[in-house]
Parts: sequence; structure tokens; C-alpha cells
Amino acid sequence: MKKIINDPNQVVQDMIKGLVAAYPNSVKQLQGTTVIARKDAPVANKVGLVSGGGSGHEPAHAGFVGKGLLDAAVAGEVFTSPTPDQVFEAIKAVDSGSGVFLIIKNYTGDVLNFEMAAELAEAEGIKVEKVVVNDDVAVEDSSFTTGRRGIAGTIFVHKIAGAMAEKGGSLDEVKVIAEKVVANVRSMGMAISPCTVPAAGKPSFELAADEMEVGMGIHGEPGIERTKIASADEIAVELTGKVLEDLELKRNDEIAVMVNGLGSTPEMELFILNGKVHDILAEKGINVYKTFVGEYMTSLEMAGCSVTLLKLDDELKELLDAEALGSAFHS
Amino acid sequence: MKKIINDPNQVVQDMIKGLVAAYPNSVKQLQGTTVIARKDAPVANKVGLVSGGGSGHEPAHAGFVGKGLLDAAVAGEVFTSPTPDQVFEAIKAVDSGSGVFLIIKNYTGDVLNFEMAAELAEAEGIKVEKVVVNDDVAVEDSSFTTGRRGIAGTIFVHKIAGAMAEKGGSLDEVKVIAEKVVANVRSMGMAISPCTVPAAGKPSFELAADEMEVGMGIHGEPGIERTKIASADEIAVELTGKVLEDLELKRNDEIAVMVNGLGSTPEMELFILNGKVHDILAEKGINVYKTFVGEYMTSLEMAGCSVTLLKLDDELKELLDAEALGSAFHS
Repeated sequence: MKKIINDPNQVVQDMIKGLVAAYPNSVKQLQGTTVIARKDAPVANKVGLVSGGGSGHEPAHAGFVGKGLLDAAVAGEVFTSPTPDQVFEAIKAVDSGSGVFLIIKNYTGDVLNFEMAAELAEAEGIKVEKVVVNDDVAVEDSSFTTGRRGIAGTIFVHKIAGAMAEKGGSLDEVKVIAEKVVANVRSMGMAISPCTVPAAGKPSFELAADEMEVGMGIHGEPGIERTKIASADEIAVELTGKVLEDLELKRNDEIAVMVNGLGSTPEMELFILNGKVHDILAEKGINVYKTFVGEYMTSLEMAGCSVTLLKLDDELKELLDAEALGSAFHS
Repeated sequence: MKKIINDPNQVVQDMIKGLVAAYPNSVKQLQGTTVIARKDAPVANKVGLVSGGGSGHEPAHAGFVGKGLLDAAVAGEVFTSPTPDQVFEAIKAVDSGSGVFLIIKNYTGDVLNFEMAAELAEAEGIKVEKVVVNDDVAVEDSSFTTGRRGIAGTIFVHKIAGAMAEKGGSLDEVKVIAEKVVANVRSMGMAISPCTVPAAGKPSFELAADEMEVGMGIHGEPGIERTKIASADEIAVELTGKVLEDLELKRNDEIAVMVNGLGSTPEMELFILNGKVHDILAEKGINVYKTFVGEYMTSLEMAGCSVTLLKLDDELKELLDAEALGSAFHS
């Protein structure tokens, strides 16, 4: 295992220290926790937004803490759900009395632990609502999931629910818009090389020198099929095709596109893929309103990518364009 | 070679197509060239800024084209200088009559070709000035360089010279501020794994499973030494120490810090490194004004990082903070 780390069992604490050192004017660590919150949390009269999950998906989720985005992100151990008490600390820290909204990626551990935290908070009189993101169309049920997995589409939930909360939306309004994003966002990914969890010390799976896995999850969960590596164009056709099939888009629909790198895929390759994704959409008469290319939801140093499409309407467009000031999302 | 590409000999054209497809409202490709320019270029009464170099360093340089940054970026083949005629096209496209300023990383081919382009432009009556960036303190002279190499510190030149041009600075004023950045910025990098140029098909060098190379260049040029891989803290001490030694900072000096990933180093590791860099600076009483952690100047999928320090004064701080709207730099 070759990594730029100190103690493999301290990577999350060390990372959080370095993150707060980088952005001391915009974020803070809640003392004694692995929670990163907005420096000004709780924000008066605003619904607080909390997300998080296992570490190793950076910039998710701490990179999306900021004005117009999340109020706090809870970091678990690498690829491991944060515990209920950590999520509870986040909820308490961001509640201004307007309630707290949880954005949970659909993994069994995350759902369970965030729900337990919600119960703890409700017992203290904090109003809590949640959404579970399940944008990955690759497979129903998986290693750590019942139903579909939550992957890069989660970032659009952060952005749009964050904008609704920032403009003063109530807890119910935030929930309604978050559910609208979840209903309209789909993703699919693929990988060409694995990653190594620091504390494990060796890759969690192997792919032969000429293989790729289509539909692989962001923790290396099995996908749909292993095949010889295809061209960027063929990969774009397969990923975009599966997403389009599920999303049932029509000619003249407007969408946002995210081409997300899993960690070690050069930006050059993401742009090459994006070119073909746009060709496919243009052929179908689907209009791209906005495109995001980069690393939003990674898997440590895994090589691969995902394609996310979000169907838009005027309300979603306005919220997508609203000001956002996270270290990994600035608009 | 495992890459998400189509034809290895078409990666630059395919990348540019995907880049323009992603950001059609802010950038344009100059037809028949590998130049990416601001959509609104030439901007009236503004000095035009042009940079570029071999591809494979994305987001450098096209990600830094935009308001308050570059007016155009010229993309050469992977790790290969763009030709003079391509640079000449960029110069013509961004000249509004106020002159054009070239930001060149110090590699022999880049310097030669940008200078030839400047001569072609001057022959057509366009005023051209330039700066050569040589921030890498690792080695004097290298595979492709006489003197020190230009690496991630170049991004600070884009940002600050870009801000000066945007606020109406003359060609001379842009040159003076760019030279001031070059005089005050130093970097050093290291690598733990190589990268593969698509058209070559195999890695340009090899490192053993437990080795790192300190001072390695962004094209895999030799550094200072190969050793057993060290901890993040030790790497931070070595890189920051060398940069500090060269920059001769004093207690209470103010600086900007950039911890840059070379391509496949997870953001988690960059933040771990950043934590120690900040500790080292705090011990010396050096004040960090702003920190940048992420991928700014990469080497395809090379694993490794660089540390850049920029000594600031009030003028540089104001220009560093000014509005910038590039796809890879937003402030």
C-alpha cells in the first residue's frame, strides 16, 4: 500500500485537521467529533442540513458544507457509516429551532445510524426530516444496500435542498424539494482499477489489466458485468443509455449532467467521456442546462467514473443556480 | 495501459471537445486550433493573457480561462509544447489593442515556441510581453529545462496577473505584477507512482512498491532522491522545508499555500499533508492568509503532490482575492 498518510488508523482525524486548517474562516470541527460544520452554524431561522457517510469519498461530504449547501457533514471511518452519536452531535449543532434535514445515501448502515440519530434528536425536541438518495441505476440490492445505492447524484440533493433552506424554505419545503431531486436524478458508474482502504492495506477487489466493471459501486460493490475495457465512447453509451432508460426523458427535456471521477481518472478522460455524453443527449434532442465535470464523489484512488443526469424544471434550475460557497462547489 | 479514451492520438482534440461541451457559455475553441479562449475574447481595453503548454496537466491551463484569469490557454500534445503557430493564434484572438501577456512554464520547448509566437505577433504590430515561471526549487536544470522548472506556482501567476489585467492594468503593470509573483513563489513536489502518456502506452518511469521520488517533475523528470516512502508528516517536512529555505520567510510574513495533487492522490491524503504543512508554518510564526488544496497542476494519473508557498503583501492579497471565474478556479 502506497499512500501519503501517517497512521492508517488515524486518517480521518488527520484529514479533518488538515481540512479545517485549510478553510478556517468557513468551517469548524465540532470538538471531540468527526463533524465538520459551517463556521456560523447554527444559522438563525434556517433549516439545518446534515449529510455524511463513510470517509474516502472526498470531497463528499465536507467539501459541500457552506452557504447554500450543507450545514454539517459527518465523517465515518473509511467506507464505514458514522455512528448515531456523531450524527446526533451534528444535528444539535445545526438546529436553530427551524428543524434539521438529513440527506442519507442509501446504504443499510447509513440509513440505520442516521435514523437512530434522528430519534435521539426528536427525543430532545428537535424536528428532523430526511431523504434517502438512491440514484444508482446499476443494481437493485448490493453488498451494503437494500434497493439502489446512493452515489454522485447526492451532490445535486445537497445543492438544491441547500438552496431551498438558504432562501428560507421550511423543513417541509426542504423535504419536498429534496424528494423531487431524488425522483429526477439517476447515475451509473464503472471502474477500471480498485482502491485500498488504509486500515486494510490491500485492494478490496482486483481487475485484470484489460478489464473494467460496469455498474460498480463507490465502495467496490459488484456491478452488472466485467468486460474487456471499452473505449470512452462505448462507456459513455453504456452509462448514459442505462440512465436515460430509467429516467424516461423526452425530446426537449432539460437536464443537468455530472461526469464524476472516482479518484485517479485524469480530468482529460472525464472531458473525453463528457464529449460523447453530450453527443448522445444532442441526438435525442435533450437540452443540457448545466454540466459538472470533476471529482465530486470519489472512492479513494479508484479509477473510473460515473454519469449522473438530473431532469430539471424552472424551480430546480433556479435552485441549482443559487449561490453556493462550499470548498468543492462554488457558484 | 488502462484509460478511458478513444484513439490515443486524438486525446487532446477529444478533451477539448468535451471541455467546450461542458462550459459553452464561458469558453470557446478557436476553430481549427487547440486554443481554448474566453467566450467574450478579445475583451475591449484589457491586456490579453495567454498561457498553455503540453496537455496532461489538467485543469492547467484551460481550467484557468475566464474572467479575472487567462484569456486563452493553448494545449499542446500530451507533455509536449504547443507549436508557435498555435500560440500565435491565441495571441491574435485575445488582443484588443492593449497588448498580450504570455505566462510560460520554464521548459525549453515552451519558452522557445512561445517566444517565436511573440515574434510573429510583434511582426503584425501586436505588443507582447512575457514571464517565465520557475517555481520548482527541487533541481537546477532538468530533462527538458535549463534552470528551474515551472510547476504549480504558475496558477498563482494566472490568478494575480489575471486580476491585474481585469482591473485595467497596462501591459507593463501586468508584467511587473507577474514578475513579482514569480519572485515570491516556490514549490516542490514528490511522486509515488508514475503516469502513462496515452500515445506511449507504458509508464515513463518506474518506482518500486515501497519507493517515492522527492523533487520529481510534472513530466516524471528526475528529482533529488529516491527513498523508501515516508509518512505524510515527513514528506511535509521535506517539501515545506526546502521551499522555506529558498523563500527566506521571516516570522509574521504572510503567505498563500497550495497543496496540489498530481492526479491520483486522494483528497484525503492532500488534507493530511496540509495539516502538517500548517503546523510547520505555525511553528515558524508564518501566517497563512489563504490555502488551496486540490488538483491544479496534474501529471495525468501520477500519484504524488507538491507544496507551493507564495509570499504576500497587501497588493498581492487584494489581487489574489479578486473575482475569478475559471472552471477550475472560482473566487
